[in-house]
Amino acid sequence: MVVTLQSYALGRWVGAGEGLVDIHSAVDGRVVARASSAGLDFEAMAVHARKVGGAALRAMTFHQRAERLKSLAQHLTAHKPALYELAGDTGATKRDNFVDIDGGIGTLFAYSSRGRRELPDEKLIVDGPVETLSKGGSFSGLHILTPLEGVAVHINAFNFPCWGMLEKFAPAILAGVPVIAKPATVTAYVAEAVARLIVESGLLPDGAFQFIAGSTGDLLDHLGGQDIVSFTGSAATAARLRAHKGLMERSVRFVAEQDSLNAALLGPDAQPGTPEFDLFVREVVNEMTAKTGQKCTAIRRILVPSGVEEAAISALCEKLSRVRMGDPRGGEKVMGPLVGLEQREDVRRQVAKLREEADIVFGDPDHCTADGVDTQKGAFMGPVLLKARDPKSAAHVHVTEAFGPVATLMAYEGLADAIDLVRKGEGSLVASLYTHDDGVAQEAILGIAPYHGRLHVLDRDCAGESTGHGSPLPMLVHGGPGRAGGGEELGGLRGVFHYMQRTAIQGSPARLAALTRSWVRGARTETQGEHPFRHDFETLAVGDTVETPRRRITLADIEHFADFTGDRFYAHMDEEAASANPFFPGRVAHGYLILSFAAGLFVDPAPGPLLANYGLDNLRFLKPVSPGDDIRVRLTVKNKRPAREPDYGEVRWDVEIFNQEDETVARYDLLTMSARPTAH
Amino acid sequence: MVVTLQSYALGRWVGAGEGLVDIHSAVDGRVVARASSAGLDFEAMAVHARKVGGAALRAMTFHQRAERLKSLAQHLTAHKPALYELAGDTGATKRDNFVDIDGGIGTLFAYSSRGRRELPDEKLIVDGPVETLSKGGSFSGLHILTPLEGVAVHINAFNFPCWGMLEKFAPAILAGVPVIAKPATVTAYVAEAVARLIVESGLLPDGAFQFIAGSTGDLLDHLGGQDIVSFTGSAATAARLRAHKGLMERSVRFVAEQDSLNAALLGPDAQPGTPEFDLFVREVVNEMTAKTGQKCTAIRRILVPSGVEEAAISALCEKLSRVRMGDPRGGEKVMGPLVGLEQREDVRRQVAKLREEADIVFGDPDHCTADGVDTQKGAFMGPVLLKARDPKSAAHVHVTEAFGPVATLMAYEGLADAIDLVRKGEGSLVASLYTHDDGVAQEAILGIAPYHGRLHVLDRDCAGESTGHGSPLPMLVHGGPGRAGGGEELGGLRGVFHYMQRTAIQGSPARLAALTRSWVRGARTETQGEHPFRHDFETLAVGDTVETPRRRITLADIEHFADFTGDRFYAHMDEEAASANPFFPGRVAHGYLILSFAAGLFVDPAPGPLLANYGLDNLRFLKPVSPGDDIRVRLTVKNKRPAREPDYGEVRWDVEIFNQEDETVARYDLLTMSARPTAH
Repeated sequence: MVVTLQSYALGRWVGAGEGLVDIHSAVDGRVVARASSAGLDFEAMAVHARKVGGAALRAMTFHQRAERLKSLAQHLTAHKPALYELAGDTGATKRDNFVDIDGGIGTLFAYSSRGRRELPDEKLIVDGPVETLSKGGSFSGLHILTPLEGVAVHINAFNFPCWGMLEKFAPAILAGVPVIAKPATVTAYVAEAVARLIVESGLLPDGAFQFIAGSTGDLLDHLGGQDIVSFTGSAATAARLRAHKGLMERSVRFVAEQDSLNAALLGPDAQPGTPEFDLFVREVVNEMTAKTGQKCTAIRRILVPSGVEEAAISALCEKLSRVRMGDPRGGEKVMGPLVGLEQREDVRRQVAKLREEADIVFGDPDHCTADGVDTQKGAFMGPVLLKARDPKSAAHVHVTEAFGPVATLMAYEGLADAIDLVRKGEGSLVASLYTHDDGVAQEAILGIAPYHGRLHVLDRDCAGESTGHGSPLPMLVHGGPGRAGGGEELGGLRGVFHYMQRTAIQGSPARLAALTRSWVRGARTETQGEHPFRHDFETLAVGDTVETPRRRITLADIEHFADFTGDRFYAHMDEEAASANPFFPGRVAHGYLILSFAAGLFVDPAPGPLLANYGLDNLRFLKPVSPGDDIRVRLTVKNKRPAREPDYGEVRWDVEIFNQEDETVARYDLLTMSARPTAH
Repeated sequence: MVVTLQSYALGRWVGAGEGLVDIHSAVDGRVVARASSAGLDFEAMAVHARKVGGAALRAMTFHQRAERLKSLAQHLTAHKPALYELAGDTGATKRDNFVDIDGGIGTLFAYSSRGRRELPDEKLIVDGPVETLSKGGSFSGLHILTPLEGVAVHINAFNFPCWGMLEKFAPAILAGVPVIAKPATVTAYVAEAVARLIVESGLLPDGAFQFIAGSTGDLLDHLGGQDIVSFTGSAATAARLRAHKGLMERSVRFVAEQDSLNAALLGPDAQPGTPEFDLFVREVVNEMTAKTGQKCTAIRRILVPSGVEEAAISALCEKLSRVRMGDPRGGEKVMGPLVGLEQREDVRRQVAKLREEADIVFGDPDHCTADGVDTQKGAFMGPVLLKARDPKSAAHVHVTEAFGPVATLMAYEGLADAIDLVRKGEGSLVASLYTHDDGVAQEAILGIAPYHGRLHVLDRDCAGESTGHGSPLPMLVHGGPGRAGGGEELGGLRGVFHYMQRTAIQGSPARLAALTRSWVRGARTETQGEHPFRHDFETLAVGDTVETPRRRITLADIEHFADFTGDRFYAHMDEEAASANPFFPGRVAHGYLILSFAAGLFVDPAPGPLLANYGLDNLRFLKPVSPGDDIRVRLTVKNKRPAREPDYGEVRWDVEIFNQEDETVARYDLLTMSARPTAH
């Protein structure tokens, strides 16, 4: 059955009547779908996203958006088999589907969990510390992040129709920015199915997600300084998009992830016979054949020490010769076809360029055999391994991307030479190093890190749990400089912040505290009749304060504490030795004694809403406390955040301990759990 | 005397023989200098920067580069009077010079101090926490930042020839990236003088700094993916640079800070008679007249509540009428000329556009009087205040920048309307709010933050110490989205990181620890015969570990601790109440008791190289300790950093406290000062 794909625009699914493009199965060439975006009102879509979807998303907190992502991930999980089935026609094997479909859903889960754990249950993020801007403390600054008020236009590549869409979608939605997704047409039937699941889930507000089957039409003409374009695909297309006059004139944020000739570097120490050599062979073959080499992170350049070429080629050829091609829907372990005949022609053209500088040592780009399929109708191509004749003077082997099961091996003379060769890629997404030598790893990493978004050191110690050269992970950045596009995606919250505006806020501490709902040094403190530990989580207000009475610390206290705890450090016990220490005037109280006495001063002993002290941050002892000094404590509610359990929440207190001269002797954040009213 | 400005290229000063452009005094129109970059080999300059300057900078640590910045700031400070003198011909008054020259030098000091305080004494930065990538812990990840291996090309604006150059220079040099600075030609004689001081100081390695007097020629054609262009100037020039084919094709990082019609928003509460109204009047007049309005951060749009227009205009006119124009070199408090006659013509053209939508209520763009100078030869222009007729339907008043002492007042109906008007600027560097009402501040900030790089809330509480609407500060970001260029500069270390590449590193914990010289959970620990507290700072190695014997915690200990410290919280004292608490199985030991006993276990009492425990970070109590439980401690050197004093350094220890079941009960970072060998 040939389906006509639809776009989801302005809250409804619409199909085009004209301009339809046929989409062919990668496996047998039959037409499986048709797509066109003719007739869509792209300007109205952008406005709808900003005014309706964006407004609704911005009305939610980070935690609320994170919850939606989790529910959505659960909804998609329930429909995985249907997506696997559809993806067969794109040439995806079971293993490829695991990366694309399970990986895409996993990214939603990962962002949901990170948003809940690391972001506040608020509508803005405080970025970095409060900056003191004045001597008297009446004027301070800090940075906030707020969602951009535009739309995120996501232009995705054909190879991972599900993961590619969701890895851009999750950070944008978590940030509070609506999405218009436009998949590559050749695999758009899989993306459309995912889009339908998203829409049908009813989990996102109207306008938060729209979908274009077909081209983006004049959409880019209607973008402005609050919008973001995020593109994954070829360098040629990226260059064309970047040159769009309106995008440039209006400083539209543009993120690109494009060509990348990723390297695998076999260390000089990783000779044949070492575990690292075997890992290298396994990983190169994996990366050449997974997704039939159609991965932006696939290994394209294989660097081996001079003298090891023959052994490396022989080991690689042996493994490559065991790769079987066939119908990925068959259930057997095979390598599927390329995404289509056009793509195969393009790969053949690139291989021809590579052959100007390299010789084929395995495979044949023009012929292959596959089990039970027609290799002319299906876009099948076997793995092709080349060997560069003179990698130092070569150009193509470093920058010409054959986006298929193709890689070029090259020999290097010493590590410095290897580093130079890797850099000739002019910026890549990832490189992997195979070494068990700290010196080699160190030199190679420092030499090539500026040219990469990710480096993987694979050795015997981590091989058992490694996720492999080619896998971008939600917690690590994905992207690379230069030819790789200069973009950065994922990387935990970094990927979320790309959809937000950072703004410095200057003003009085009270104003900053009110804005951020977080107490700022210098802001008003509120001392109430009742001890704040008697207030539950909901009742406690930022700025609520308790000031304790004084307590004297005597020499007897210090000696007693030393005897009791066993901490007989000389600075507490020996006047002469203590005086010789550059930090102390003589014997001083233990830091832990000061903390313990401080708790004795501020703790309210009877059962109440304060449940536990679960930690302490940023403790600094600023001035020694000598025998005979008095201490007193000021404790102020700094901020509150709900915990994962509904029955209590986390309260952060700003604690300052003073001596009898009102000098600060210690300062820290105290973390407590406080009960929430039982109604919850 | 007419000087011919020189460029500093490839380690020497060179003058051009042809293509010289005359540079006129802003005050009297006489030719003060000539400049041309004809004959420079721009490609060789870029190569020299990368290969010689970059290599030398990258061989230094962050602290070493920070020290150079400090020395350079001291060197420039000694030569301030000569720079003030030169700047007179640009039209700069004493107050303008304070911003430009003292401000520029202050930025060097600020980055030096921040680099020393917040960056490690290393060649790479670890960005963010270690990410656990595996269940077993044998595979982890983290992010590092390394300097880009290219050159930073800084294209500066005419208005702040010193600050503009140094605010871009300081973060780049601290990052480890060499600079080619190209000032605006019309004030290049001041920039050249600063450049000469930089070069003559001998403080920077060869190639770390080069200087172009004149145009950038074909420099941009020779930039690649490791290079950065940072531009400050007009939107028109920025658009031309962005469209450079090579920059786009090679994903060259491009930072722009361009047009910005910054707003001052008088809150509905800040009626005439309030301190905020007076602050507003003072600040608007300041920003219109400082640097004769030639500031990218100057107030261009003045928003007042409907009904307050007349009072606001009358107060502003009263103050504006007292502004006197004259020769800035005269020592009197005057407003100087615009930078040149061409600039004055341009401002007049923009005022003409504004007048299509607004009426002049003060001043005359075509005529002014000034004391003792010829206002035709000098580029003098008096302040011009306009009032928009219908700001909602107007376009020019929101986006047409008259880069002189010109601003447009507009009335708004309610705060939502004011927010809409501010947004019509399509992205600005800064806005200021004049309000003493938390609700007004909150609504306005959330409404306009996504459109701004900085917001200043000015009220009676912070006015005494405020640095003002127009002053970018090294610790806060400078830049804005959309029409303001989309760039971000300064902002403390953020401005440094723009010159670096972020790279995710994946591998075994041991490999990550070796790379970052910082212990990572899962990496090897080294237990030696001698207690590591007996090792000095230099001898201590990352991974050095001490494992203590066990100690039992009894109910008697808990009761004794409660009596001694006064901390009689029920969870320690009352079995029944403690059992009812969701976190505790029954009575438990105080967290501070556990910490104190832990110190008793690991402290080595005799005088030695360990001098003091000065703090503690990230303490989390993970499992309660019940009476009868045993605890033991593992203490491992996590990392080391030199302190400001040469006699000792800071050591960070990873501490883990276990119970008798080897479960972790608490985890924290312990901070100590350890002595360095006396040879230092």
